Amino acid sequence: MSDAASPAPVISVGAYLAHRLVQLGAPHVFGLPGDFNLSLLDEMLTVPGIVWVGTTNELNAAYAADAYARTVRAPAALVTTYGVGELSAINGVAGSFAEDVPVVQVTGMPSAAQREGAALLHHSLVDGDFDHFVRAYREVVGASAVLREEDATLAIDRTLRAALESSKPVYLGIPSDVAVVQVSSAALATPLKASASDPAALAGFREALAQTLDGAEQVTVLAGTQVHRRRAEDRLVDVANRSGVRVATLAGAKAMLPEDHPASIGTYMGAMTTNPAVRAAVDSATPLVLAGTVFSDVLTGLFSHRFDVASAIELSISHARVGRAFFDGVHLGDGLAALDEVLAASERAAVSPVQALPAPRRTPAGDDDPLTQEELWAAFQEWLPGGVITIADAGTALYGALSLRMPEGTDLLVQPIWSSIGFTLPATLGTCLAAPDRPSILLVGDGAAQLTATEVATIWQRGLAPMIVLIDNAGYTIERVIQSPRAVYQDVTAWDWTALPAALAPGVDVLTASASTPSELRSALADAGEALGKRPVLLRVVTGPDDEPPLLTALGESVKASLAG
Amino acid sequence: MSDAASPAPVISVGAYLAHRLVQLGAPHVFGLPGDFNLSLLDEMLTVPGIVWVGTTNELNAAYAADAYARTVRAPAALVTTYGVGELSAINGVAGSFAEDVPVVQVTGMPSAAQREGAALLHHSLVDGDFDHFVRAYREVVGASAVLREEDATLAIDRTLRAALESSKPVYLGIPSDVAVVQVSSAALATPLKASASDPAALAGFREALAQTLDGAEQVTVLAGTQVHRRRAEDRLVDVANRSGVRVATLAGAKAMLPEDHPASIGTYMGAMTTNPAVRAAVDSATPLVLAGTVFSDVLTGLFSHRFDVASAIELSISHARVGRAFFDGVHLGDGLAALDEVLAASERAAVSPVQALPAPRRTPAGDDDPLTQEELWAAFQEWLPGGVITIADAGTALYGALSLRMPEGTDLLVQPIWSSIGFTLPATLGTCLAAPDRPSILLVGDGAAQLTATEVATIWQRGLAPMIVLIDNAGYTIERVIQSPRAVYQDVTAWDWTALPAALAPGVDVLTASASTPSELRSALADAGEALGKRPVLLRVVTGPDDEPPLLTALGESVKASLAG
Repeated sequence: MSDAASPAPVISVGAYLAHRLVQLGAPHVFGLPGDFNLSLLDEMLTVPGIVWVGTTNELNAAYAADAYARTVRAPAALVTTYGVGELSAINGVAGSFAEDVPVVQVTGMPSAAQREGAALLHHSLVDGDFDHFVRAYREVVGASAVLREEDATLAIDRTLRAALESSKPVYLGIPSDVAVVQVSSAALATPLKASASDPAALAGFREALAQTLDGAEQVTVLAGTQVHRRRAEDRLVDVANRSGVRVATLAGAKAMLPEDHPASIGTYMGAMTTNPAVRAAVDSATPLVLAGTVFSDVLTGLFSHRFDVASAIELSISHARVGRAFFDGVHLGDGLAALDEVLAASERAAVSPVQALPAPRRTPAGDDDPLTQEELWAAFQEWLPGGVITIADAGTALYGALSLRMPEGTDLLVQPIWSSIGFTLPATLGTCLAAPDRPSILLVGDGAAQLTATEVATIWQRGLAPMIVLIDNAGYTIERVIQSPRAVYQDVTAWDWTALPAALAPGVDVLTASASTPSELRSALADAGEALGKRPVLLRVVTGPDDEPPLLTALGESVKASLAG
Repeated sequence: MSDAASPAPVISVGAYLAHRLVQLGAPHVFGLPGDFNLSLLDEMLTVPGIVWVGTTNELNAAYAADAYARTVRAPAALVTTYGVGELSAINGVAGSFAEDVPVVQVTGMPSAAQREGAALLHHSLVDGDFDHFVRAYREVVGASAVLREEDATLAIDRTLRAALESSKPVYLGIPSDVAVVQVSSAALATPLKASASDPAALAGFREALAQTLDGAEQVTVLAGTQVHRRRAEDRLVDVANRSGVRVATLAGAKAMLPEDHPASIGTYMGAMTTNPAVRAAVDSATPLVLAGTVFSDVLTGLFSHRFDVASAIELSISHARVGRAFFDGVHLGDGLAALDEVLAASERAAVSPVQALPAPRRTPAGDDDPLTQEELWAAFQEWLPGGVITIADAGTALYGALSLRMPEGTDLLVQPIWSSIGFTLPATLGTCLAAPDRPSILLVGDGAAQLTATEVATIWQRGLAPMIVLIDNAGYTIERVIQSPRAVYQDVTAWDWTALPAALAPGVDVLTASASTPSELRSALADAGEALGKRPVLLRVVTGPDDEPPLLTALGESVKASLAG
């Protein structure tokens, strides 16, 4: 047993990895045991601070680790067994790649002797080839290593550093015999961190930036999730505080700059941007700074963005660009700091705010009318407190959440690029563990929640207290919007969601409520507000199978047009 | 809309695939909808006979399709969407590879135009490379194709034929534009079937076999699951009916030859074989015929088999061997038929039966004592009727089931090579749909069942009536046997299993019972017997976290020794 701050001089490979995770600020380890990771887990769990979070299956572990890594802003680990475990998790890890999240997939593998002997082991394809799964993983991770006794700690450090540098997931295969090998802990005295920007490239970038911004009357910044992943929001705020600056965000980065900041002009989604003035402001901006952005279909209103990417200034995870001039090795945080410096060197007039949309005119439904999505999101907006992590699954929940105005300190965790339905329920386990002092509120439809519903058992039985808003609308409404709304494959089985606590967490005091009308919803939200962060809440809201938030209507039309073309 | 027997002359690619599946005898299609497979599903569902089976997630669809394919003995399809869907299913498909099951993984993909344009689509890694996931799949399937407009039906036939020939899973990527392309249905007039054995090779094998068996006083056959996969049990029975023949089976093929057949000597597991006389009979057999066997760790009692594989006669899926003489292109069924012919040409004396074990002496527990695994399996043995498909998950359920003597017409579906816990619950969905006239009985532990528990919603809400025996023993008992029984990772959350029907299938009349003592168990089994096959049963049996069937005790010792060495 060793102390986290000063481990024994010689420790096991498993303990070495665990010390690194604790150092990085990600002590929670997600996963399931299996024949090939028991020794690894035993070694990891000797390290003070490490917390084992057993999940109901490996995909859920990957989802939880992803959201945990996003929230603590550090590489976070899941540990699975060989074959059956790691392959079950691969969709989640691929999502981490698509969304720039540094998850560490740790697989306990058969021993070197077993692999060299081509033993026909269970959990293998019984063809003597033990590299099938690491090869499959190489398709979805930024770096990988199968540890050997002679350089195990070097390989761990190299792989974790790759996760830090790239904000991509990595794969560590740890044979059962290597997990227990004794190694020097000396390297732990030097914490891992991402390398600094290249000084010459940074200087070059700063100079090019100064030339390009010289005389600009205003500067428009479009910010994406990579700013969040690099923990550079404070630098974005610095930039936003300069005169003459406007900041829009992509949907995945909604509220990354507080939405009530004077420079914030809200969320940009190409043709799906709610406010035409915001759309115009971004599409016509010169100069335009793209900070940590990825222009996927969902984020750009199906590629309907009209600004000129080629002539823009771009700050990415590990390079910067000013028009056609590339500066490799300029990291995002340093790029933003350089932008701030350049902006500080000259004054611009304050820009007038973008014209706000008039408050949507709507005729409120009667108190006892059937609940609509429009009423749902209006009531939720009115109720939503500050300081919360909201999490919205793909589908109506995402588009409802994107139309919210986030109060101070409340932000939104979504997965708009990978868009794997069911992601958010285990993700809520991750946020609750990563940010125990902020309430987590999950917004999820019934179709999505059924993929990963078993994880509420872990959430509730660990004493975590998120609020889950379950939109019960009898199937895959987002797919109904796109095509064949009455097809049999759009239906899901009907569950009694409010009976779930009794089955999956007997004895846990979950506040359950069901709302089918506006008055029931307001009453349930009031009760939930009392419980928020203290007692788990499961609020089922019933809406029609074809009812959708207005933003989703717009998307559906675009997708239909895209699929037709 | 076309008729299954005589489709229209021109049909869509999706309809063509569906017609092939109906022809092959696997009309049930498992999966979930997603943006990239909606058009494909719409086309497939126009074909009469096709039945959509929506599951709660894609891994479960893969498991269900696997068990369905095993039971109907034909290639069975699951349909997933691109990226998120297919990767969620890959563990199940890898299991089909390890266990020789011809599952057809059908993925709806982005269109050719989207892929060629390197569009940054959702469900992709937004790097413009759309081949990541088919490359990952190539590690775990026997054949794959991404369909093109110009030869889509050829590629479908080639891929399905590969599944038929090899009994391995295959991957079909169908771009959304290709799914709706109109093609000739002419090829459907010729049903797909596996090719015949090579006549010259077969003749050569028969001759070598006759020489080797000449004068043999008895012939011992060790049969494995490939006999089942090739639907060659009848030929095995023919062989078993010849004088002087004894047949043992590997665990995965338990009861493939009815256990009360005079030639049956039971299950062989190397040093874990329950009856030492059976172990000796197989280990010392000359000549020994290996029919469709795979010698993995679990199946051989951790490689403790002592017979001489090199000098044996081997019948495999597509080759045969007599000692050092290989006969490529001799298929398993034909190889067994050749064996039967050779045996028919000469008479051998009847062999004496292997000495049976004395009935295990045990002191029955008191009626109201805590239920033990020993009592559980004894009571289940006494109660188990004939004509049933029993399904046992990895863990205590597997080792309990392996110690049963199966009544006539009852067999056992297990996954001893891949051993992915949770497999069996969705597998039960597959067997119920594939064999509606035989009751399915699932034996599963709580740790395993939690991975895939949501699928009971599909089972119960479709009106299927399996009996589920849920062994509630507070965690991963099989891992406790192997290592660190008190480690935190061995625990799972405590569920009230009997409350699951109310949450996941409200209104469905599930017979639930809970048994913690022998008398409660007998009473519950009596009730379950009344309901069997007519009404779903959920029987929770409570055993201690460290209690295990005797066969598992033996395995645990072996694994510990193996891990230590």
